[in-house]
Amino acid sequence: MPDIPHMTPDQFRCQADRLLDWAQQYWDSLEQRNVTPQGGPGSVLAALPDRAPERTPDADSEWDAIRDDLDRIIAPNLLHWQSPRYFGYFPCNASGAGTLGILAAAVFNVNGMLWATSPAATELETRLLDWCAHAFGLPDRFLSTRDSRQSEAKRWGGSAGRSGGGGGCIQGTASESTLVAMLAGRDRARHAGAPIDRLRVYTSDQAHSSVIKAAMIAGLALGPDDRSQIRLIPTDHAGAMRPDALRDAMADDLDAGAVPCSVTATLGTTGTEGVDPLPAIADVIDALCPDPKPWLHVDAAYTGAALICPEFRHLADGMDRADSLCLNPHKWLLTNFDCDLFWTADRDAITAALSLTPEYLRNEATDAGAVIDYRDWQIPLGRSFRALKLWFVLRHYGLEGLRSYIRNHVALAESLEQRLDADPRFHLVGTRRTALVCFRMDSDGHTEALVRALNARGRIFLSHTRFVVNGESRYVARVAVGAPRTEAAHVDECFQEIDRAATALLA
Amino acid sequence: MPDIPHMTPDQFRCQADRLLDWAQQYWDSLEQRNVTPQGGPGSVLAALPDRAPERTPDADSEWDAIRDDLDRIIAPNLLHWQSPRYFGYFPCNASGAGTLGILAAAVFNVNGMLWATSPAATELETRLLDWCAHAFGLPDRFLSTRDSRQSEAKRWGGSAGRSGGGGGCIQGTASESTLVAMLAGRDRARHAGAPIDRLRVYTSDQAHSSVIKAAMIAGLALGPDDRSQIRLIPTDHAGAMRPDALRDAMADDLDAGAVPCSVTATLGTTGTEGVDPLPAIADVIDALCPDPKPWLHVDAAYTGAALICPEFRHLADGMDRADSLCLNPHKWLLTNFDCDLFWTADRDAITAALSLTPEYLRNEATDAGAVIDYRDWQIPLGRSFRALKLWFVLRHYGLEGLRSYIRNHVALAESLEQRLDADPRFHLVGTRRTALVCFRMDSDGHTEALVRALNARGRIFLSHTRFVVNGESRYVARVAVGAPRTEAAHVDECFQEIDRAATALLA
Repeated sequence: MPDIPHMTPDQFRCQADRLLDWAQQYWDSLEQRNVTPQGGPGSVLAALPDRAPERTPDADSEWDAIRDDLDRIIAPNLLHWQSPRYFGYFPCNASGAGTLGILAAAVFNVNGMLWATSPAATELETRLLDWCAHAFGLPDRFLSTRDSRQSEAKRWGGSAGRSGGGGGCIQGTASESTLVAMLAGRDRARHAGAPIDRLRVYTSDQAHSSVIKAAMIAGLALGPDDRSQIRLIPTDHAGAMRPDALRDAMADDLDAGAVPCSVTATLGTTGTEGVDPLPAIADVIDALCPDPKPWLHVDAAYTGAALICPEFRHLADGMDRADSLCLNPHKWLLTNFDCDLFWTADRDAITAALSLTPEYLRNEATDAGAVIDYRDWQIPLGRSFRALKLWFVLRHYGLEGLRSYIRNHVALAESLEQRLDADPRFHLVGTRRTALVCFRMDSDGHTEALVRALNARGRIFLSHTRFVVNGESRYVARVAVGAPRTEAAHVDECFQEIDRAATALLA
Repeated sequence: MPDIPHMTPDQFRCQADRLLDWAQQYWDSLEQRNVTPQGGPGSVLAALPDRAPERTPDADSEWDAIRDDLDRIIAPNLLHWQSPRYFGYFPCNASGAGTLGILAAAVFNVNGMLWATSPAATELETRLLDWCAHAFGLPDRFLSTRDSRQSEAKRWGGSAGRSGGGGGCIQGTASESTLVAMLAGRDRARHAGAPIDRLRVYTSDQAHSSVIKAAMIAGLALGPDDRSQIRLIPTDHAGAMRPDALRDAMADDLDAGAVPCSVTATLGTTGTEGVDPLPAIADVIDALCPDPKPWLHVDAAYTGAALICPEFRHLADGMDRADSLCLNPHKWLLTNFDCDLFWTADRDAITAALSLTPEYLRNEATDAGAVIDYRDWQIPLGRSFRALKLWFVLRHYGLEGLRSYIRNHVALAESLEQRLDADPRFHLVGTRRTALVCFRMDSDGHTEALVRALNARGRIFLSHTRFVVNGESRYVARVAVGAPRTEAAHVDECFQEIDRAATALLA
């Protein structure tokens, strides 16, 4: 095939070696490089040619040009999520082990949509989700394999419709897990006879935007501002859902003949890491709702990572009463994007909402009911071999290594919190649970100007939210300590940057 | 941080080198290795420990063990989608260039949810989608950038609701594109006042299962068998939607007061590569439906790759009347999974269905309306830097290289088709459009036994479908020629395997 320029093995290895050199240079550069992107809108577009190349006369020099473009066009126009001075949003961790796992998955490049289309992809994933259920101290009801369950009898079965066994899989993002959970609750209620327009879904006013987006996708909200079927329950001073307010909203809806079908609780809100009270929420559901009860999903996307340490597991009290949960190793557990772990106690409700089998996907293993086909647990059909990167991370670091990693960031966040608290210009906001520190200055104008000045300078990157403090919505700065290489010196620099910017602002 | 075992640069490079050696050995093994997995259900689970390791005393020997496990546990239990003797489903192409692109994306590991969270990720993607729109001969209405449009005036604007400009982005899979398109159509109709239970969606009885799944997710079908709101339009002898049947179904629905909101046409069905007649379908929509007209989405997931060659563009006649389309470079264009290209002529309708902006994602660029935030075009919030792998593939191969690649497979499929056609034991089914050859034997029993025997032997891998031939539903074998390294010798072996198995079967 002389006219198809596939890379030869030598060519591939040579370019892979050069790309690894480039990768190390990029990673090394992060210590000095500013965190924030340089160019304004359109600058990358303008630097790229209008048309794809028709042919590449010399592949080696093209690869030289590609790496040069990575340095010249791409890298300067990225937000450097791997920088040790990245403190924005939540982290998005890469690691050497995770990167190698991605490489191995790209080498196999299988589509694990069915067990039959790559048994090892399915079964490694099943095993890893059980590993993680144990590692994060989750209830047995979320385990996939019978031999992993300490006791079938221990499984909590207080709610109807939980006919299926439990289990877990890897989703792309927490948004997808939230959507899958809402669909399971929606269709459990519809199968029990509730018309779609009578359904109601509940979450807190501090829940992630993906909950409203899930309602939009599921046909339960027409646009982001439609509140006819979604109830945003007020939160307390720490950003946690108020169970009394949930009770009132649900009671009103039930009185009006509506059908609660989904409750999304948050273990660590995006704004201020608020933790919803799961036992009280489950009590409200059990006290008020007839069977089938609304599906209780727990979005632990960020804070869930800390459950690997026993000292944080109290945050997950009541998890044994949830129908599903998710947490993201791609945020704060060194597993490159994307990797969201999703567990359910009722796999049948998930597949009832998402499974269909056309003839061209039928196979003996599926027909025999002997295997799990994870396509039936997710939105897309196709699925990549994401389990490999999680496997590599767990094996390279070990659970103790990952616990040290989490504890280091939490200790650094605590030290930053103390320094901010000791400075009269800064006021802490919310309640720090793990490694997110929220603070404000005396006025919203000052806080917003501070965040903008810091990010414009670019030595550190923060993000912001709004949060109700003493009855007033306030602009709040967020510092999430969680980049892979963040050490004490970077958190020191973070405080110095904040200090310097505040001084300039107040001068 | 002595207790956090991050890889040192030397450690990473050493293990990366060894993994590249392993990768080359795996790729080399594919020429000899059987295509199909070896073990039955549970064999991988049984080979893996019950618990994650607490600690890893010696990282180097752990990595030796990891590679050993890849060879011993994982590889033997995969379906080898990269084998040159893989002819199942549709292809799922890897390449050296695509693999390096995945590696580069893993190194940056940015989350490009917003333009602001990595401008280069967004703008490279915007530019590549315009590159590909030109490369695949798509209408100007799907272009993102004004300077890429040859003429704004050329844009087709016959339908209401098409207020926004066009543009494209990368989705994970065609399933997601189909869902996004259906949501845009659903909400365009709801915003015009149609209640959700009055909406109707249309596709053919040969359309991909993801269309019914999208209707399930969107709240338009309760389970896979619910036909109250979805119409599966009958197809002709070649597997193409019958426009007269679409007209009848739509007219009936309109007479009954229902509101058609979505039509999903297929350019290359999964079963037999049927091509729906876009001009006739668009004529039916225009003749029957009031504004806002139903959204016309074209699922060109597989066959769309061939549009890179001018000689196949006649298959896309009428594309200038579609609201959106998708095609998958991760199938048949050497770009490792996942990479689905999605274009729309009405970006405002997409964002109306999917956009919401919580405070913590607000930023100056978004507020100014100066940029595209691709989170508003997709189901999840987070998004990886998939554009890099497509960029690397386009630059390494060039468009001419990719055309040669497609043409080679099509020629190989044609030669196989001729050999099957010349053998009285085999009967061709459907109409070959590019590189999918479908055939059957005299009875369904024989055809099914043939496919099972071939796959059990494992030298080649085929899949199957059911298709109506002369009024009867028949079991049909499918041979999709499209693995990256498939050459004439492999297709020869494919025919010899079929020949031998048929001889054994009929003996």
